[in-house]
Amino acid sequence: MLSKAVVKYIKSLQVKKYRNQHQAFVVEGAKSVLELLHSDFEVQHLFITETFYNEHTDTLRKGFNYEIVKEEELVQAGTFSSNNAGLAVAGMRRLPQLKLKAHELVIALDDIRDPGNLGTIIRIADWYGIDKVICSETCADFYNPKVISASMGSFTRIGVYYLDLPAWLKEQTNTRKIYGASLAGENLHAMPLKPEGIVVLGNEANGIRPEVAKQVNQLIKIPAFGKAESLNVATATAIIIDNFMRNTEH
Amino acid sequence: MLSKAVVKYIKSLQVKKYRNQHQAFVVEGAKSVLELLHSDFEVQHLFITETFYNEHTDTLRKGFNYEIVKEEELVQAGTFSSNNAGLAVAGMRRLPQLKLKAHELVIALDDIRDPGNLGTIIRIADWYGIDKVICSETCADFYNPKVISASMGSFTRIGVYYLDLPAWLKEQTNTRKIYGASLAGENLHAMPLKPEGIVVLGNEANGIRPEVAKQVNQLIKIPAFGKAESLNVATATAIIIDNFMRNTEH
Repeated sequence: MLSKAVVKYIKSLQVKKYRNQHQAFVVEGAKSVLELLHSDFEVQHLFITETFYNEHTDTLRKGFNYEIVKEEELVQAGTFSSNNAGLAVAGMRRLPQLKLKAHELVIALDDIRDPGNLGTIIRIADWYGIDKVICSETCADFYNPKVISASMGSFTRIGVYYLDLPAWLKEQTNTRKIYGASLAGENLHAMPLKPEGIVVLGNEANGIRPEVAKQVNQLIKIPAFGKAESLNVATATAIIIDNFMRNTEH
Repeated sequence: MLSKAVVKYIKSLQVKKYRNQHQAFVVEGAKSVLELLHSDFEVQHLFITETFYNEHTDTLRKGFNYEIVKEEELVQAGTFSSNNAGLAVAGMRRLPQLKLKAHELVIALDDIRDPGNLGTIIRIADWYGIDKVICSETCADFYNPKVISASMGSFTRIGVYYLDLPAWLKEQTNTRKIYGASLAGENLHAMPLKPEGIVVLGNEANGIRPEVAKQVNQLIKIPAFGKAESLNVATATAIIIDNFMRNTEH
């Protein structure tokens, strides 16, 4: 059974301040917990249902301390409305220093506030083999439970770096092409693209900030054929990255 | 001020049964309400903040009955956690009979349960000029407030048809190519595609049902370059449709 103190601790980790204080975060649901167990993140607590135990006994034998609890307890402690699998508390990890390879495609996010969008973008990066996402300091927090959940396990593989985006882009400007998604950009379908450079996506409502736009060499646009005024930023990221990757040998 | 009876009525419209009974649904937020006012949907109730009134006085002059209320009242009656704009109750509309043009690209959804995904897909359809989305009867309800909200106004332009999907696809099979998204499909990037046919996307967890898959002529796959096991269904829809549209003159 989950003690009151543990429930209180888990709940406190919904808040960034306490996550940072404890250097820990919450992982929920079958897919995410399973990916966590296969990653090099430190697992501090692991609460699972009997169903999850029966399905993943082999993985659990690798030396994890776990406790079998009821679905209601997981729901009570966590953020999911149903969770017939598991909930873990994991330790934050220190990322290696940010260093880009000579030819590399990187996603940079300017002020993406919605945690669901950030998590979905991390999943997209992982699908296309992009292992770094650069975030302005005002982006949603990587360890927010909604980010972790929307990434569907990809949080274990992608390095998400928070930094002063305009200053960092300025440093890259002589060595890399910097693309920016914009409704005023050039038609993406008509451009010869290869998977290198930095692709900047801007805030859900306001787009790329002027100080970030100043560092962009090439504005790009997903051509519109209908009447919607915009696309969701995670949707736009997916389409743009697919266009960069489509000429790559697979 | 919103009366108790009106709040109760609005809240009842969160439930499909009452939406169908009253043939009415709720529209929330600046963008969605504005698109509603510019559409041919019947507006039965319109509650707006003073801010929205000041910004859209010209639109409101076109003969809408509205009432100015406080933000807190909109939040209390609706589903948004903040809403400094408006909330409307609109009448459902009868769609014209489903009739596909000779060459047309259509999206078909098999058991897409998440209303956010359905709304995002409607927005994607609208971006690419696709005006019909076909849904199996188990898909999320078009008039669910989360569908309406995620579509960002595109609900006013897209016809969403609910029907027996396997039976309908069977009728189309001699006249149209039916594509199905599947991890076992052919690499989308290597196929010569043009914007016609039916693209079937399956359930978030289980993919396309066997009885639907039986009607598919061509399985297609978004090539993966990394380690994520899947993409969100709305993300996948966006990438696939972009690949169908990219050779179109714009």
